[in-house]
Amino acid sequence: MAIKYELEKKSSQCEARAGVIHTPHGDIKTPVFMPVGTKATVKAMTTEELEDLGAQIILGNTYHLFLRPGDDLVKKAGGLHKFMNWNKPILTDSGGFQVFSLGHINKITEEGVVFRSHIDGSKQMITPEKSIEIQQNLGSDIMMAFDECVYPTATKEYVAQSLEMTLRWLDRCIETHTNKNQALFGIVQGGLFKDLRKKSAEETIKRDCQGFAVGGLSVGETKEEMIDILRFTTPLLPEDKPRYNMGVGTPDYLFESVEAGIDMADCVLPTRIARNGAAMTSHGKVTIKNAKYREDFTPLDPECDCYTCKNYTRAYIRHLVNVNEILGARLLSYHNLYFLTHLMEKIRESIIEDRFLEYKEEFYKKYGYTKED
Amino acid sequence: MAIKYELEKKSSQCEARAGVIHTPHGDIKTPVFMPVGTKATVKAMTTEELEDLGAQIILGNTYHLFLRPGDDLVKKAGGLHKFMNWNKPILTDSGGFQVFSLGHINKITEEGVVFRSHIDGSKQMITPEKSIEIQQNLGSDIMMAFDECVYPTATKEYVAQSLEMTLRWLDRCIETHTNKNQALFGIVQGGLFKDLRKKSAEETIKRDCQGFAVGGLSVGETKEEMIDILRFTTPLLPEDKPRYNMGVGTPDYLFESVEAGIDMADCVLPTRIARNGAAMTSHGKVTIKNAKYREDFTPLDPECDCYTCKNYTRAYIRHLVNVNEILGARLLSYHNLYFLTHLMEKIRESIIEDRFLEYKEEFYKKYGYTKED
Repeated sequence: MAIKYELEKKSSQCEARAGVIHTPHGDIKTPVFMPVGTKATVKAMTTEELEDLGAQIILGNTYHLFLRPGDDLVKKAGGLHKFMNWNKPILTDSGGFQVFSLGHINKITEEGVVFRSHIDGSKQMITPEKSIEIQQNLGSDIMMAFDECVYPTATKEYVAQSLEMTLRWLDRCIETHTNKNQALFGIVQGGLFKDLRKKSAEETIKRDCQGFAVGGLSVGETKEEMIDILRFTTPLLPEDKPRYNMGVGTPDYLFESVEAGIDMADCVLPTRIARNGAAMTSHGKVTIKNAKYREDFTPLDPECDCYTCKNYTRAYIRHLVNVNEILGARLLSYHNLYFLTHLMEKIRESIIEDRFLEYKEEFYKKYGYTKED
Repeated sequence: MAIKYELEKKSSQCEARAGVIHTPHGDIKTPVFMPVGTKATVKAMTTEELEDLGAQIILGNTYHLFLRPGDDLVKKAGGLHKFMNWNKPILTDSGGFQVFSLGHINKITEEGVVFRSHIDGSKQMITPEKSIEIQQNLGSDIMMAFDECVYPTATKEYVAQSLEMTLRWLDRCIETHTNKNQALFGIVQGGLFKDLRKKSAEETIKRDCQGFAVGGLSVGETKEEMIDILRFTTPLLPEDKPRYNMGVGTPDYLFESVEAGIDMADCVLPTRIARNGAAMTSHGKVTIKNAKYREDFTPLDPECDCYTCKNYTRAYIRHLVNVNEILGARLLSYHNLYFLTHLMEKIRESIIEDRFLEYKEEFYKKYGYTKED
């Protein structure tokens, strides 16, 4: 068995839960935020820094690594862990989402997806089998099944047919999944239709999966729709396996996911906004280029004890961002990842002490979220 | 007295010497290579990493810091050390070289240099007084006098007149130099004309300077010309003060500078070539994009024990550079700075053990330099 989920504490207030996922590369305390290492690097960060700031598991992107440097090369290097010098758990996505969002799709068929590479325009195909082969070459601890990500604009008929295909694709993924040191997660689809979500969940959990994601969210629906579907779908999943909401990374989306019963979340947001000069702090978002920070010799977040906040001022980071220095992106990336990682730690604590909703309210108040957020 | 030079050992083979410069921010063992922190950051590096890799002193650029963020802001922050979180010595240049090479010069007069900012085209003037005022606001341990950098194409008449102006400018710098916690270095000019070099050296060392640079080199002359002028000029300088060759950072130029009696050198080269994907190694330059490194799972430099070489492979760094990831620039910058810093340490050792020329030969052979290099 590649991984095992152990439930530690269930909130009496909502679906929130604290647990541990045991993996071949160590334990992950959940709920957990997972930094994204798209191209075998979490942008601007060393793996040593990721360990320092408390990251427990990172993501790799199958689509990007398939194109460059190629999963064959990563395999020769001894797998993604060794290639990028990261000895803790890695989760790889299926490549599906990037194929849909970055590649130029030629055709989606029962067989798989034909697309053109966003790099050189070359024609490529990813099938469920191919996705698992790539992920097995990468050697991640957790692989994701290849699914069709359906957008909220799709008709009910389309969503219904698509989720059936995703189930058939899942069967083919399971068939191809031979390395039992790697776990495979199934993905529940069904768009914004609760009957379809129920059907997809029921069918998916019948399959041999070691965990589940609630898919097709954070792709254009409103926040209310996301919360509604998440609160409906997550409790349908088995309690003894981890649950994953893909692609969320703002504090409010993390709170909402956990409240609905989610254990894992990931997003490029903390490192992306860092490269654009923004920080997440206990008192809300700081856009460092603002003139008011010119002579601000205090830390980014006075309540934070990360490397950036202990050593550098807002005025200095503002200067670095203004003159486009790499160190600016580095210091902000470090801080933002530290902030979300530690936010999840504090959320976990609040679940164990059964005061999750109080902590959420306290955080929202300080961060500056209104009731509508 | 801001700084004090202590001679430890003079080579019996050449002018090479080992010593220590005592400064308000600690001692510097010489000869020393100084990483350049142009805009209050050594590109892609934290100051913690600079300390880790053994950097003893770094540079700041007066021209850049004057324009952004402004020396007034740096002064308010408590000086450059505090602003950028570096507690070891800092040397600032005079701004002269950048005014000549980056700004659009309107006029050089006895008063100073009028130029247009390379950022916003605004009209600016730097005079000797202004240069020292800025450097005193920055609070560096070592300031450089504002001089006219003369190119090798200049006529003898021009060079002769220019060096007289540079001496008058030096007097004005000394007049403005009120903060005695900061040292001031004079700069010897004279182009490629030995009689003028002699005159400039004699006049400069009469002034109240705590150290000297041999200026107007590495600006277009041949390597032979540089060596010839350096070997002629450096021994004219007093033995009890540090000597600085500005802007050199290839291993051979460092060896030649030290051989001529130089104690300090700086260059943007190690970090600049890093951002272009090149590494300096014991066996010569490695251009990491070359296809032959695609499946090379060995370190950049098998003889190096820096963070990069202990943790990452050529194949991985090649991938990072190919996909334009910040971590690629970081790992290469770290390695190159480590390489030059430690090269200078080994050079120093060889001087103390009086085998400098043997070490030079040994290094050249392995690095792949030919007799003509």
